[in-house]
Amino acid sequence: MQTTDKSAVDSQLFRQYQPGFGLPGAYYHDADVYAAEMERIWRPGWLFAGHTCEVAEPGDYFTFFMDTDPIVVIRDDERQVRAFHNVCTHRGTMLFQQREGRVGRAVVCPYHQWTFARHGDLLACRGMHEGVNKSELGLRPVAVETVAGMIFVSLANSPSDFAPAREVFASAGPHNFEGAKVAKALEYEIRANWKIVWENNRECYHCDANHPQYVKANFDTADAEQDSPEKRQAIAEVVAQHEARWAAAGVAVTHTKGGLARFPDPDNDIWFSASRTVQVDGYESESMDGRRVAPLLGKFTDPDVGVLRMRALPNFWNHTSCDHSVTTRLLPAGQRMTRARVIWLVDRQAREGADYQLEKLLPFWQLTSEQDWHLCEMVQRGVDSTAYSPGPLSKLWEYNVQAFIDWYLSKMSAI
Amino acid sequence: MQTTDKSAVDSQLFRQYQPGFGLPGAYYHDADVYAAEMERIWRPGWLFAGHTCEVAEPGDYFTFFMDTDPIVVIRDDERQVRAFHNVCTHRGTMLFQQREGRVGRAVVCPYHQWTFARHGDLLACRGMHEGVNKSELGLRPVAVETVAGMIFVSLANSPSDFAPAREVFASAGPHNFEGAKVAKALEYEIRANWKIVWENNRECYHCDANHPQYVKANFDTADAEQDSPEKRQAIAEVVAQHEARWAAAGVAVTHTKGGLARFPDPDNDIWFSASRTVQVDGYESESMDGRRVAPLLGKFTDPDVGVLRMRALPNFWNHTSCDHSVTTRLLPAGQRMTRARVIWLVDRQAREGADYQLEKLLPFWQLTSEQDWHLCEMVQRGVDSTAYSPGPLSKLWEYNVQAFIDWYLSKMSAI
Amino acid sequence: MQTTDKSAVDSQLFRQYQPGFGLPGAYYHDADVYAAEMERIWRPGWLFAGHTCEVAEPGDYFTFFMDTDPIVVIRDDERQVRAFHNVCTHRGTMLFQQREGRVGRAVVCPYHQWTFARHGDLLACRGMHEGVNKSELGLRPVAVETVAGMIFVSLANSPSDFAPAREVFASAGPHNFEGAKVAKALEYEIRANWKIVWENNRECYHCDANHPQYVKANFDTADAEQDSPEKRQAIAEVVAQHEARWAAAGVAVTHTKGGLARFPDPDNDIWFSASRTVQVDGYESESMDGRRVAPLLGKFTDPDVGVLRMRALPNFWNHTSCDHSVTTRLLPAGQRMTRARVIWLVDRQAREGADYQLEKLLPFWQLTSEQDWHLCEMVQRGVDSTAYSPGPLSKLWEYNVQAFIDWYLSKMSAI
Repeated sequence: MQTTDKSAVDSQLFRQYQPGFGLPGAYYHDADVYAAEMERIWRPGWLFAGHTCEVAEPGDYFTFFMDTDPIVVIRDDERQVRAFHNVCTHRGTMLFQQREGRVGRAVVCPYHQWTFARHGDLLACRGMHEGVNKSELGLRPVAVETVAGMIFVSLANSPSDFAPAREVFASAGPHNFEGAKVAKALEYEIRANWKIVWENNRECYHCDANHPQYVKANFDTADAEQDSPEKRQAIAEVVAQHEARWAAAGVAVTHTKGGLARFPDPDNDIWFSASRTVQVDGYESESMDGRRVAPLLGKFTDPDVGVLRMRALPNFWNHTSCDHSVTTRLLPAGQRMTRARVIWLVDRQAREGADYQLEKLLPFWQLTSEQDWHLCEMVQRGVDSTAYSPGPLSKLWEYNVQAFIDWYLSKMSAI
Repeated sequence: MQTTDKSAVDSQLFRQYQPGFGLPGAYYHDADVYAAEMERIWRPGWLFAGHTCEVAEPGDYFTFFMDTDPIVVIRDDERQVRAFHNVCTHRGTMLFQQREGRVGRAVVCPYHQWTFARHGDLLACRGMHEGVNKSELGLRPVAVETVAGMIFVSLANSPSDFAPAREVFASAGPHNFEGAKVAKALEYEIRANWKIVWENNRECYHCDANHPQYVKANFDTADAEQDSPEKRQAIAEVVAQHEARWAAAGVAVTHTKGGLARFPDPDNDIWFSASRTVQVDGYESESMDGRRVAPLLGKFTDPDVGVLRMRALPNFWNHTSCDHSVTTRLLPAGQRMTRARVIWLVDRQAREGADYQLEKLLPFWQLTSEQDWHLCEMVQRGVDSTAYSPGPLSKLWEYNVQAFIDWYLSKMSAI
Repeated sequence: MQTTDKSAVDSQLFRQYQPGFGLPGAYYHDADVYAAEMERIWRPGWLFAGHTCEVAEPGDYFTFFMDTDPIVVIRDDERQVRAFHNVCTHRGTMLFQQREGRVGRAVVCPYHQWTFARHGDLLACRGMHEGVNKSELGLRPVAVETVAGMIFVSLANSPSDFAPAREVFASAGPHNFEGAKVAKALEYEIRANWKIVWENNRECYHCDANHPQYVKANFDTADAEQDSPEKRQAIAEVVAQHEARWAAAGVAVTHTKGGLARFPDPDNDIWFSASRTVQVDGYESESMDGRRVAPLLGKFTDPDVGVLRMRALPNFWNHTSCDHSVTTRLLPAGQRMTRARVIWLVDRQAREGADYQLEKLLPFWQLTSEQDWHLCEMVQRGVDSTAYSPGPLSKLWEYNVQAFIDWYLSKMSAI
């Protein structure tokens, strides 16, 4: 039997780690490390699954794999969002076999027609002998929390309290994701460890050279190297200029300087965060030219609401402009593979071709994402080298990479 | 060195098994379990290799892989069917490199031209030094038994007695597979563990919804849920109606009720069986409409001979109608892969296009097979889940799945 | 953590080895054996990387993978050939991402623009905090030696002395590889263990049947089975006929009999060798018809210089005629995969189409190589069998296979 030698993972590797530097290479390719991550981070954690508008009506469902675990999210008869292990409780058949769809009032396993309610109960199992206890054979549930149109699930038996995250993500409320629809979703297989994807996400040190369209729109790369009074003043002016209008819209600027907001916070075990930031002058939306690319989304009448940014470890980030919202969901598929789904939301009433064009909606984040995936794959090839030795992290630019590593190591050693 | 930790496989997993339920998930994907199965079940067992008509003439051969072991079956100069490890005894070259073919009086290794007789002896090894003992360097033999046109092999050094199986499979004699030919063979890579394929085969609980063409033809799904006197009576009438004609043809009805014949029999270590069953009224052959799809096969003059069904663990089943015979051969190729070869036999004299059409011959079993392979692949994805927990087996429908599991576990713990 | 259990590899497998026979099967597919080979043979050894003419100008580079280690070879500003681990010292990005190319005076990492000199020093790392010591963050060097236009590298921290190999390979000097160019290079993925490729290379027992074009050109298969006085005389006559002209050209015949020169020499740890041999009458070059296929290469004015053959374990061999040179470089990529690059050199001034035609230059070694790769793949499939048992090696033909195995086992047990 192959088992994870936890103590070996903990002691041997952990001793190699040097604060201020990247993780030792084995963290990115060792099978036992990966197995430990599934047990300590991914299965216990709260994972973004999708948007509530992806399961708008009773019976709507979507599926995904968390590592080797097939999961289904479905809206039940009472319009409640549920999640289950997508595994028939009889012989183990994967019950829902499509990426997404809608089922009638009951879900019938294609193998032996065991029939489950949309809230998971086993309704019928014709052909079974007397004495089979149907009440014990419902679909195995997965914990679900929804907040502001976002669905989070946890595979843990006793998940951690979601309330603090709920409070933070409620800031997306005015954008009304519940009233949105998926304009487009792209699925990627990134040939890189999931931590490489996060380490890429957690700094904009790489942005100037790699994301020309992205750095034109925001202040992520401003002022990071040194807190020059001039730059700080320039941002303050932009902030001041918008503050009043935002306040009228009921939202507040929460990140008022250049560089990335601090995230995560390993000392306080904060794995979720949201901040609203200004864009550069002339940008109303995260688009190639800063113009809006869809009708206003949510309750706003003034487009001047900046950009709401949210993230949650280990698998979610989102950027929401006044007119559209872009979500990235990560899922691990082995040490050297991460699946990403990038989802573009627009108002449900908006008509493709008339009210928005995909060729204007997609490029900003499609380019940024694909530029990043390529970088991540090149990092994987390098850290796979037996000669790889972690380098120093920039205290000016990579403080969030350090925070991510600290958070990660605290989770890995927590058990 | 990677070794199979037998005691771990035995104790840890076995303790998880609960009678009346499916096997724990690890049995379907753990590498050590798979290695143990090769050692305890596949290499010691008798494996169906092919039909004697596939090697009709001296020098005819076919090859296959049992896991990583290349095997060749060949008819020798004395018309005897032989089997060998398809590995040159010099440097290990795979000797026969095609799926099938015919060799002249000697087999020449393409690498260094070591030359072997069709009965395996090393005839020549020009270029070797004095003192090389050719008599020790013949091809390494694999045990072979043939019965009624079927070839079984065993990779064991001391295979178990084949005589009881021979006695049972002799019931295929009147169908004269020796006088048949392969009308068509299809090869499949099923992305599922071999046991999932067997568990699928050992019940018709899934047939009504998945195999419409199959259940129209037979009584496999009749009367299984409850022994209703009415159904039993209906079958008895069909049986009575055919009995006399079958007796005239020299065959007997051996399965005279609905549902599947009991197989295997773990208590008596019975891994082989044959039974002759009636079809529903109007069916003369296992075809889409019940009509014959080829000239009569074998010694029969009356098409009314029902269907002979044979099976042997771990890798063979066959359904033989009056006019054609369909064989399925399984071979494992890793924990999550099973190769299947489905072979259609018709009378050797029958001419394709004139005496039979493939579009009428194939669909019944091609559909049934492919429907099953898809189900098996969906089960594999489910049992790979860390959340998979075996469900109860129906005592009405899945008694043979239970018997298979019992047989399997007895083999796995036998060493 | 997955670690190589060295003592297990050493003791368990080694005890199975029987002198005079091939290696036990596990040596060709066991993951721990492969890991030990990387540590004991490939990383400590001197590996042929490429020709100096592949990096003719400062900034020219080429890359390759030694197992999972990306390596780059580059000519620096002082025209010195350097090699580095192709891994950025910051976050581990694979720095050079193409097979070959030319960089300007500095190499800029695409991720965060750390900038390295072509001799490896870190020149700039804008964005890092104060106190980062650039002098410690240069590219990690790989030892390089060049001799007669050939580049060898070693991943060892303290490589073995290259001087003896340099002395031997200096015999290629007159052929002036420095003044050559790559006319063509072909890359292969051979689905076979690297040792199978060497064992194929180390005997011409297989040549008569598999390499018709090759055996027409030389005496490799002459006289091997028995030292017949007639054959010996025939070769002596050819040698005598050429000796004087070669002497005038400043080269000497060093292999004056049929069969392969003895290599390697495990007793004296000789992993490199060179010999000059005659071709059969009428052959001036290793080409399909023996005619020259390119202008003279090097300092020669008389085409009658025989064929210089060089080899170095674990990854290099070369055959050089008067007009062109063919190099084979091996690189391991897992237990069952070897990458080969075959490189044809001609004089740098020669113009394709005018002075040489690829369709005349390539076939002799392209055919020979591809014939061998197929044989190697068939051997891999055979030695993967659990039934594989090593056969005896011919003392007449396979003395060099025995020498290779002896050398290999001495390396494997040396630590």
